[in-house]
Amino acid sequence: MSQAAYQRVTQRLSRIGALGEAAAVLHWDASTMMPRGGGEARGEQLAALAGLSHELFTAPEMAADLAQATAEGEWQAANLELIRRSHARSAALSTELVEAAARANSACEKVWRDAKARSDFAAVRPYLEEVLRLQRETAQALSAVTGLSAYDALMESYQRGVTAAEIEPIFDAYEVFLREALPRAEEIQAKRGTPIPLTGPFPVGKQRELCRSLSLRIGLEADHSRLDESLHPFCGGTPTDVRITTFYSEADPAKALLGVLHETGHALYERGLPESYARQPVGEAAGMAAHESQSLIVEMQASRSDAFLSFLGPQLQAAYGGDPAAYAVQNLAGLWRHVSRGFIRVDADELTYPAHVILRFRLERAMIEGRLAVADLPGAWAEGLNSLLGITPPDDARGCLQDIHWHDGGFGYFPSYTLGAMAAAQLMKAARAATPGLDAALAQGDMAPLLGWLRKKVHSQGSRLGFQDLLRAATGKPLDPQDFQQHLTARYLVEA
Amino acid sequence: MSQAAYQRVTQRLSRIGALGEAAAVLHWDASTMMPRGGGEARGEQLAALAGLSHELFTAPEMAADLAQATAEGEWQAANLELIRRSHARSAALSTELVEAAARANSACEKVWRDAKARSDFAAVRPYLEEVLRLQRETAQALSAVTGLSAYDALMESYQRGVTAAEIEPIFDAYEVFLREALPRAEEIQAKRGTPIPLTGPFPVGKQRELCRSLSLRIGLEADHSRLDESLHPFCGGTPTDVRITTFYSEADPAKALLGVLHETGHALYERGLPESYARQPVGEAAGMAAHESQSLIVEMQASRSDAFLSFLGPQLQAAYGGDPAAYAVQNLAGLWRHVSRGFIRVDADELTYPAHVILRFRLERAMIEGRLAVADLPGAWAEGLNSLLGITPPDDARGCLQDIHWHDGGFGYFPSYTLGAMAAAQLMKAARAATPGLDAALAQGDMAPLLGWLRKKVHSQGSRLGFQDLLRAATGKPLDPQDFQQHLTARYLVEA
Repeated sequence: MSQAAYQRVTQRLSRIGALGEAAAVLHWDASTMMPRGGGEARGEQLAALAGLSHELFTAPEMAADLAQATAEGEWQAANLELIRRSHARSAALSTELVEAAARANSACEKVWRDAKARSDFAAVRPYLEEVLRLQRETAQALSAVTGLSAYDALMESYQRGVTAAEIEPIFDAYEVFLREALPRAEEIQAKRGTPIPLTGPFPVGKQRELCRSLSLRIGLEADHSRLDESLHPFCGGTPTDVRITTFYSEADPAKALLGVLHETGHALYERGLPESYARQPVGEAAGMAAHESQSLIVEMQASRSDAFLSFLGPQLQAAYGGDPAAYAVQNLAGLWRHVSRGFIRVDADELTYPAHVILRFRLERAMIEGRLAVADLPGAWAEGLNSLLGITPPDDARGCLQDIHWHDGGFGYFPSYTLGAMAAAQLMKAARAATPGLDAALAQGDMAPLLGWLRKKVHSQGSRLGFQDLLRAATGKPLDPQDFQQHLTARYLVEA
Repeated sequence: MSQAAYQRVTQRLSRIGALGEAAAVLHWDASTMMPRGGGEARGEQLAALAGLSHELFTAPEMAADLAQATAEGEWQAANLELIRRSHARSAALSTELVEAAARANSACEKVWRDAKARSDFAAVRPYLEEVLRLQRETAQALSAVTGLSAYDALMESYQRGVTAAEIEPIFDAYEVFLREALPRAEEIQAKRGTPIPLTGPFPVGKQRELCRSLSLRIGLEADHSRLDESLHPFCGGTPTDVRITTFYSEADPAKALLGVLHETGHALYERGLPESYARQPVGEAAGMAAHESQSLIVEMQASRSDAFLSFLGPQLQAAYGGDPAAYAVQNLAGLWRHVSRGFIRVDADELTYPAHVILRFRLERAMIEGRLAVADLPGAWAEGLNSLLGITPPDDARGCLQDIHWHDGGFGYFPSYTLGAMAAAQLMKAARAATPGLDAALAQGDMAPLLGWLRKKVHSQGSRLGFQDLLRAATGKPLDPQDFQQHLTARYLVEA
């Protein structure tokens, strides 16, 4: 057993990490800067980086060193454990299976783009069946080396440290909560009347300037970040060079504004990761649910709070002019905290969003466990949505064809969204309790107190802890959906 | 001997080529997009790519396959020969020497930036001595495997297929030509009187638009190119995604305009390389002198011709307004074909530029051959410049400290500039002879006839041929400085 072997392992991981960073910049570039004609060569570049990373990770010397390596201290131990687990997962999957899955995902995703436009589930069905078959095979193989259930083994790729058995009762309880909460929220909303719409013009140049300055104001550093435009907003780049994107609509400044605040939450997490473990697994974010908790704590918890809206309103009014009453806190709240039963997940509000996720969690788990056939998906979807939200999608485009995830092989990802939303509420409550003046600061557009707490409790922890352990260490308890329900109750279920 | 081995070799080269493309995009990004704080990580990313490329190229399997490989046809043969030559050059240099040189170059370059600002040659001298020592050691090692002289072995890194013995008489003859030509050009210029200056404003937005549209007009495709801004203009990216940069001055639209035309010449070369040999050495440009010939044929030969200026003038007048007389052909010629004896190479005109290069060629060759010590460089520089242009630099900042090249280990590069300028004149003459209507098209802002000829004779040839052979195949003769002198005579030595 040897520390020298540990050092060799981490040196190899640093190199793989640097290739991953290169790929991240190239991905960002492909979505923001690259002329269309560069696409094919970009594919070659990314394939070469992915192939070399895989070869470095699965080289015989790596296995030998991993067997010998010993860690010193808690962080090294966590890092080594993460590397060993990832190595075991890689080793469990044959090159043939990985390549077959990549091919099937790519083929299905391509057909899906068209099929979604025409709402043609039959066209995508055989492709999705093949994707599912290979995902189930992958899940079995991962289950065998991890000791997790098949579904949990897939979910671990996105979020470590939480199981479907823990999620199921939480989601079931939310369904019960929503059954009463949704009609009540709609009733209160109706009583409040229609908010005054913001009237433009909202020139893109001004929106860009405002979004960037807000992003910097709440904690992103100009020297370590960019804000650009892409069709689908994302947070990319690397921890010392985070790159967020948005899409501006001349008609509605809220989309880009709240979107940028959301991506800034992701970006702040990346910026706060422990530098001394850069390019090591333990230095990365703790998973997708953890990541989503950081975007949502900024966007949903902090930015849509009365306190922050009281700061934001006058900023917007100064930038765009128009009726000052439209920028009053309660009016912005009426516009940006509006509840409605819709078919589309990405357009959903905070209260109904979990219903969309619960539906997908149940369906994808049933598919992975062999309890639901792809052929029966549209029917199960319609039934499930109706039971959760009381509405039935008019077609599959607004039903089971709406999301890319399954069609690209992404089974096990969906829970992250709602785990993140719930964790955000739980973290916000703990941050408030520990940080007097947090809301007074928000009312000044100052997120420093909140960010300071998150830096300490979440960002600087890297992925030393899994999801539940991270929450335990930060808030004293594992995921507790009561905090989220309390938040929703205060925001949507109390008459002003 | 086997074709299968050749295929394995080229597959490995494709992968190395893809890593090289990734690095090219990351370099572009670092100069145009990257926030400052990303610099350190970018260094790690580029180092990982360079290190892996080197390992792939020098892996034992590579040497074994190279020994076995057989080529089919002329292109494969040229490709294999290029790979073998490059492999032999790599093998000739120990890892210690390569790393020591990289460290010395980096240390010297850093000190040089400061020393140049303070015109302090003494500060940089010991660093440059170390750089030179390692360059001489490198040159000896390369000389041993290539059979070239030490200086030629260094020059081969930048431009294959031409020797110092061929260059020397050409440069000596130019010195003789210049001795008469320069005073005569100055005399004619003085008679013509001072041209009318262009008066602004020249808003950056308009300049950007005009530069981009001109770049596209003369043959670059929007789907395969970008135009951005950086401190030092360059042409980067990859052949299907070429990225040129410029720097806009609100006071003078000519700098960016002519700079973009120059970089477009480079970009068109990259776009015209043989796609079927993408990511193979034989599919790359034929060297730095060949590359410079393509930027200069567009910028100097075509764009500054009376014909093209007659098209350009009205375009500029329409964009910026002001006195129409300032945009007349002869006035633009007076502004943009102005001859003057200056200290700075990058500011030099077409006629005196070679003098700056000849000076550097003689000095760097003497340093590599041990005939000139670094300590004697400032004196030799002053003397040499005085002998060539009749002026003496007032300080070393405007003398031997002005260029980065030597201070970053770039010995053997300088001749490329003037070889390129001479080749551009020779190619232009041949293109004109073969293409009736070439100048009539230029007068319409149409470079298609010229580009068509270059595509066939230069671009599509990749690096199948070395510099002299490329010229022989395209023009029927090796580099012939008479064509350049004829061009200069017609442009600068004939009274209008």
